[in-house]
Amino acid sequence: MSTLTIEDALKLQVGADIRLADIDPASTPGLKGSGDKLDKRLDKSQDDIKDELEDLQERLFANHRAGTNPGSVLIVLQGMDTSGKGGAVKALYRALDPQGIRLASFGKPTEAEQQHDFLWRVRKQLPEPGMIGIFDRSHYEDVLIQRVEEIATPEVIEQRYTDIAEFEKELAQQGTRVLKFMLHISPEFQKENLIERLEKSEKHWKYDPSDIEARLKWEDYQRAYEIAIQRTATDESPWFVVPSDNKDYARLVVQLVLLDTLQKMNLDWPSAPVDAETELERVKALPDDPRD
Amino acid sequence: MSTLTIEDALKLQVGADIRLADIDPASTPGLKGSGDKLDKRLDKSQDDIKDELEDLQERLFANHRAGTNPGSVLIVLQGMDTSGKGGAVKALYRALDPQGIRLASFGKPTEAEQQHDFLWRVRKQLPEPGMIGIFDRSHYEDVLIQRVEEIATPEVIEQRYTDIAEFEKELAQQGTRVLKFMLHISPEFQKENLIERLEKSEKHWKYDPSDIEARLKWEDYQRAYEIAIQRTATDESPWFVVPSDNKDYARLVVQLVLLDTLQKMNLDWPSAPVDAETELERVKALPDDPRD
Repeated sequence: MSTLTIEDALKLQVGADIRLADIDPASTPGLKGSGDKLDKRLDKSQDDIKDELEDLQERLFANHRAGTNPGSVLIVLQGMDTSGKGGAVKALYRALDPQGIRLASFGKPTEAEQQHDFLWRVRKQLPEPGMIGIFDRSHYEDVLIQRVEEIATPEVIEQRYTDIAEFEKELAQQGTRVLKFMLHISPEFQKENLIERLEKSEKHWKYDPSDIEARLKWEDYQRAYEIAIQRTATDESPWFVVPSDNKDYARLVVQLVLLDTLQKMNLDWPSAPVDAETELERVKALPDDPRD
Repeated sequence: MSTLTIEDALKLQVGADIRLADIDPASTPGLKGSGDKLDKRLDKSQDDIKDELEDLQERLFANHRAGTNPGSVLIVLQGMDTSGKGGAVKALYRALDPQGIRLASFGKPTEAEQQHDFLWRVRKQLPEPGMIGIFDRSHYEDVLIQRVEEIATPEVIEQRYTDIAEFEKELAQQGTRVLKFMLHISPEFQKENLIERLEKSEKHWKYDPSDIEARLKWEDYQRAYEIAIQRTATDESPWFVVPSDNKDYARLVVQLVLLDTLQKMNLDWPSAPVDAETELERVKALPDDPRD
């Protein structure tokens, strides 16, 4: 059965020539078929990477515990409302050991946060060595909503692109691999999602009327994304635009890119704090019951 | 098929008359059978609570997001090395929405932490309203290892029992339900686990020679647990001693007690920020594509 591969996922990396209008949110590049057939291929792809992803993340986390520094990974999730950021977070938690994940969600800045530079609150949430950080929204909000809603002046926004690029360069130098994903949905798909939130009482809490304001400025947001990506996409801190009308597809892409990054980190198990063979003899010789 | 119920799990609550020697770590109170039969009953029990647990936690988290205060839950996991605390954490993450969980692991206090009162680092990690906190080890280490290894004087330890009881009373008054679990394993089971860690190179990192020192003082630790439980078990902040040689059983008990607590919180969905019906009409009337 054909499955989605790391190579397929990496093809979604975009650069300075990104044009969102050229990327169909309803497509599933690398995987053919639709309906049940597509679902099965997605399931199979997910199954195929499960063990390796778990193994590599455990190696990363083991180094964290051992106090060595194997580097870290930071996954940045961005996208319009209802694009599936929360679901992607859930899927990552299911695929990995939660103890090795550091999740941070960024909402509207608090008053205290507004008193500081926009990167202040972000720096506080960076993953420690050996950890995988996930940002559900991020410092990119400061050049997306703040640009579209004109919360910051054009000069300030302009400076922020430079600041973000330098910040991420600094992270790369410190050994943090930053992987940035835009979960790209169609307005039709968003409308369906918004209606669902309003139709089901148990989904009302997810509904925010300001989502409609953002939707009315769809084109402005798409443009803000394009510029942000153009100004900050590098091979060291790459951007991926992931067609996300199919949520399982989008979640899988994020995990495949993560797998690729972990593979390239050449992660070894940290050495045992003692000579394992000698220690094994010692432990085997212990009484089964220490009270004996 | 007989399954483990909330009532079964609640019977594991212990009080001032706790005697660990009377509780068989290899038993599975409430569930009969062994081997495959037992495994199936455990799976069935887990399946039975899955939907309700997810639903109630989502209600709790929805209130967090809506900024109302439905209270919070704090799950404290304690146990000897290899008792399955990490596995219990993983199972909780799989059963719940990770965004609604706040996990904190407490190792040896850092130098900065040692400069403060022992509850200082714990207070910083308390769950916000609407969140479920999980402590992998906790402030109880300060009356367990610190008592057995005589790191603190008997007078200081004595004072700490009182401090902990008051701290937890304060939490209860603020709406945080504290649920404390001792994952109770047998020394035979621990020995098997330690040998496994030393035999598999990918498990070496989990091995800590100091675990053996603790094992040699098994009786002292059991006694320290008994005293800590006796001094801090209340109906408001209960202690459960969970037989944990069967890890699936132990994980299930933790989730059943959590389910009971969530049920008793009478969680409602927060009201929609707008009139849902009117808003639904508005959204349905929006163009499918905002560019139209």
